[in-house]
Amino acid sequence: MKIILASGSPRRKEILEQFGYNFSVEVSDFCETAANGDPVIACLRFAKGKALNVFLHKSKKERSDAVVIGADTVVYFNGKILGKPKDKTDAINTLKSLSGKTHSVITGFAVIGEKLSVFGYDQSEVEFNELEESLIYKYVETSKPMDKAGSYGVQDGFNIVRSVKGSVYNVIGFPIEKIKFVLDGITNK
Amino acid sequence: MKIILASGSPRRKEILEQFGYNFSVEVSDFCETAANGDPVIACLRFAKGKALNVFLHKSKKERSDAVVIGADTVVYFNGKILGKPKDKTDAINTLKSLSGKTHSVITGFAVIGEKLSVFGYDQSEVEFNELEESLIYKYVETSKPMDKAGSYGVQDGFNIVRSVKGSVYNVIGFPIEKIKFVLDGITNK
Repeated sequence: MKIILASGSPRRKEILEQFGYNFSVEVSDFCETAANGDPVIACLRFAKGKALNVFLHKSKKERSDAVVIGADTVVYFNGKILGKPKDKTDAINTLKSLSGKTHSVITGFAVIGEKLSVFGYDQSEVEFNELEESLIYKYVETSKPMDKAGSYGVQDGFNIVRSVKGSVYNVIGFPIEKIKFVLDGITNK
Repeated sequence: MKIILASGSPRRKEILEQFGYNFSVEVSDFCETAANGDPVIACLRFAKGKALNVFLHKSKKERSDAVVIGADTVVYFNGKILGKPKDKTDAINTLKSLSGKTHSVITGFAVIGEKLSVFGYDQSEVEFNELEESLIYKYVETSKPMDKAGSYGVQDGFNIVRSVKGSVYNVIGFPIEKIKFVLDGITNK
């Protein structure tokens, strides 16, 4: 059974590698629009869209022997979904608003195969330290926040995160604990 | 994690018991209409409908600690979906048409939980013996075919089935091999 990761995120690739899977990466051309409303529904929809897009581009023969994994991460704070920042100013403002507060990180995932499809999500609560303005500027200067939902990466250091309640892998963008049993079951590992 | 089987079928209950699961049965009030078109899409739709119906009747608190399993089996022969027989004459005609031939049995299933949902199906090919008319009448007289898709049960004897290619559990109406790893993963068994 061939495993295909429908995500361009180097973090997701890294996590799946860490857990010993052989897979290929195929980035979908699913068009992600700005999310609003229920964060669970939004990230599930995008995860499914990404995976299905890659799956449906396969031939019937390829489909019968493949599973495609899609994932989408959103940060939810104060009743709003925070996606990737538009620009550095947006990233700075987002980090300022999250400073000293707790927000939710929700990653939806979809594992799509010919005879089995799985849709799920995981949720973690992340508490930020009080962030000095100078630290925010320094962090944004690295450009690291620019491709990340909520404008930060828990793995980026900079003393941003005080605590994580729930899966840290989920906060990075790939709740491998939940995806693992599905993959192992499908691939009979 | 509480397991709920959204099916009134005594066969599905028996199989789930055989495999050592603790669960309760709650029959959905999902209204199953006559199926046509693609058999996989049809049985997936009904399996999902049954499970979702029971799941959505639960309180938010109950949902957070439960998974609901729905399943639907169709017999597919000569480009047509064969459901349960309308009456004994229908059962007799169905059995006559299947006599000496091979048909497909497809069971769709849905496992619906708060944070994870799984949709899948399994397909088996069943070859019938040439059935004497007297045997068909005798079998239908037992009323056993009346609540079964395709008007027969592989487990009913009567020398009806010559061979099964694929899962016999799937033909009985519950592809436990595929459902097992999902349940074990969700319940961390």
